[in-house]
Amino acid sequence: MGSTRDHRLAGRIGRLGTETAFAVSAEADEWQALGHTVYPFHLGDLDLPTPQNVVEGAERAIRDGKTGYCPNAGIMPLREALAADVGGSHGLSLGPENVAIEPGGKPVIGKFVLALMDPGDEVLYPSPGYPIYESQIEFHGGVAKPYGYVPGADDFELDWDSLERQVSPHTRLLLFNNLQNPTGAESSPEELERLAGFVLAHDLLVLSDEAYWDIRYAGTSRSLASLPGMAERTVILYTFSKKFAMTGWRLGAAIGPRWIVDVIARLNVNDESCSNHFVQYGALEGLTGEQSGPREIVRVLRERRDAAVDILTTIPGVTCYRPDATFYLYPEVTGLMEHKGFTSYEQLRRTALEETGVSFCTRLHFGRELPGEERRYVRFAYSGISTERIEEGLGRLKAWAEA
Amino acid sequence: MGSTRDHRLAGRIGRLGTETAFAVSAEADEWQALGHTVYPFHLGDLDLPTPQNVVEGAERAIRDGKTGYCPNAGIMPLREALAADVGGSHGLSLGPENVAIEPGGKPVIGKFVLALMDPGDEVLYPSPGYPIYESQIEFHGGVAKPYGYVPGADDFELDWDSLERQVSPHTRLLLFNNLQNPTGAESSPEELERLAGFVLAHDLLVLSDEAYWDIRYAGTSRSLASLPGMAERTVILYTFSKKFAMTGWRLGAAIGPRWIVDVIARLNVNDESCSNHFVQYGALEGLTGEQSGPREIVRVLRERRDAAVDILTTIPGVTCYRPDATFYLYPEVTGLMEHKGFTSYEQLRRTALEETGVSFCTRLHFGRELPGEERRYVRFAYSGISTERIEEGLGRLKAWAEA
Repeated sequence: MGSTRDHRLAGRIGRLGTETAFAVSAEADEWQALGHTVYPFHLGDLDLPTPQNVVEGAERAIRDGKTGYCPNAGIMPLREALAADVGGSHGLSLGPENVAIEPGGKPVIGKFVLALMDPGDEVLYPSPGYPIYESQIEFHGGVAKPYGYVPGADDFELDWDSLERQVSPHTRLLLFNNLQNPTGAESSPEELERLAGFVLAHDLLVLSDEAYWDIRYAGTSRSLASLPGMAERTVILYTFSKKFAMTGWRLGAAIGPRWIVDVIARLNVNDESCSNHFVQYGALEGLTGEQSGPREIVRVLRERRDAAVDILTTIPGVTCYRPDATFYLYPEVTGLMEHKGFTSYEQLRRTALEETGVSFCTRLHFGRELPGEERRYVRFAYSGISTERIEEGLGRLKAWAEA
Repeated sequence: MGSTRDHRLAGRIGRLGTETAFAVSAEADEWQALGHTVYPFHLGDLDLPTPQNVVEGAERAIRDGKTGYCPNAGIMPLREALAADVGGSHGLSLGPENVAIEPGGKPVIGKFVLALMDPGDEVLYPSPGYPIYESQIEFHGGVAKPYGYVPGADDFELDWDSLERQVSPHTRLLLFNNLQNPTGAESSPEELERLAGFVLAHDLLVLSDEAYWDIRYAGTSRSLASLPGMAERTVILYTFSKKFAMTGWRLGAAIGPRWIVDVIARLNVNDESCSNHFVQYGALEGLTGEQSGPREIVRVLRERRDAAVDILTTIPGVTCYRPDATFYLYPEVTGLMEHKGFTSYEQLRRTALEETGVSFCTRLHFGRELPGEERRYVRFAYSGISTERIEEGLGRLKAWAEA
């Protein structure tokens, strides 16, 4: 059953993107299989165990017979618990009717786009950013309009020039990822306020991707959805993946106005019936039970962040912020590339892998470059590598950079 | 966060269908909550436990740390096991490259349509049939062309008149569900052969929905995909839901030519990253471990089928086949409706619920009626009700019908 007959594929498949980071992962695995040491900074996955109480909650639910279908929008106690949790952290009055449980955070992207974007509509999305935004917009016939980030004093900031340049009367949606992948960027209260004004001025609907909301080392997460006039036009992408180290469990939620959430639940009926039944009880235990699990995850990640930033900032030709949230670093490597005489990202990435074993993604894995981008960046994820190996790998990278 | 602003929804949402059977289920629950006895024949869910070795396989995988992401197309051992299992039962040479693991069987419908249907393409699908076919076709811009079934000597048969009438040069896909929901229909070898000829003559691509492949009480399941020339143009919808009583676990697969399966796996990257990691190990144990679990499920279902058919066939104005497969019965109730003076399906359904507690779906829950349909049918699912309660409920229905 082989054969290649691409001419019979639907035209939209030609507009379907992917996560090219998976190719980096495959390449690193290959390199390791050849007997080389690899330091995996390319993965956005966690190598930490799911908290024991979540595991026990799920296993208890299996024994209790929670193995048949559940409602399309999820089990009521989990919808209630999420409404209370997210309502509380966001200062919003939410009920279970504002919550649709999904098999991961990712499904919320496609469903938000399908529910609200007509073919030809323009959609603002971040680049660099999670590559699935661009893919889902274009796959379903929209016009993807990227906006960027610029380096600020101690964090990246929204590139207002690109936002103002890209918005038009045809713009319908804004995809926004505060606590951002890949940059680690976090908006100041002033920036959020300005963005809310922009959304109102252009009458946009918003997807607020808050996948990293609870992965933070100082301060408090803030949401665009909390600002006046935003809740009624914003869907929050929530996921259990990061906070509870549940990436492989596949559970998340769309949280927003009922008129959108109802449609997303109807898309659930069509696309997958419901999310795994007993996994929802595990997540419920995670949300409402004791919290040592998520605390320990953040403690370990903070240690890794500090180890990675401490070394990266001493590498010549590399500058790097110390983000208060996410498990990503997005160092600028313009100087390093010049020093090494590299003209392409792929040359940097391949050579670093082969000569140091350090594997990472580059700007290219997070959407198309914007006009005028001159600085060069790469992304280090520290979610899947221990502090000891971070120190070893980045030590090698430093020696290599200094050579 | 309330408000209704449907005018901001995308146009395609107006074409999005649903499973109206869920409304029947909600109505039955309401009736029961009022203190009435309900005999649930409306559910396509199973009230039987998932086999213990499947549960243990999944729990072992959690302990082994299979809680992070897995490959988009699924874990290799499960893809290999499914290729061997389905290849063996279908007489096809399949490898893991022909298998993409999905979070249920249902996602295969939408992904097949997205991968192969352009807007304006015509798609043949069964009516009565699983209502998600019609919904996904129209939602993504296709033209849904229903074909029907006609009563034969001891089973329903394909309505060739409707197939020939509905096919056109614009027809691109055929959705086919042998061992059919809701009719329980099973194609004879001759019918399958004629259908394969029809597919070749009109150069169609096929979705072979085989959700009920292993739920059978006599004989051997046959697939359209096994016929000459079919494998290279057919995607098999496989699900673990029925055979292993895993409906709430959400696991299935798309099995077919690599050029389509590769695209479906890329849709996985975009839609949900991957299916639950440890659930796949449970399914692997189910496929490759000892088989007393699935055997016991079929044993119980056979007992229920016989109990239900034995009574239904004695009710005046009702005729009913005894299908060798699925857990559905699709009795004709034209005579009963005439006797009772009912002119609408909803009148029959509501009155039967209120006067006997017996809850079932009707022809209306399985797609639009075709021109010329004169006989009246309802669907009884016996997957979620014990033999004892089948006898009690249908006994009441019989007494009511005789009155």
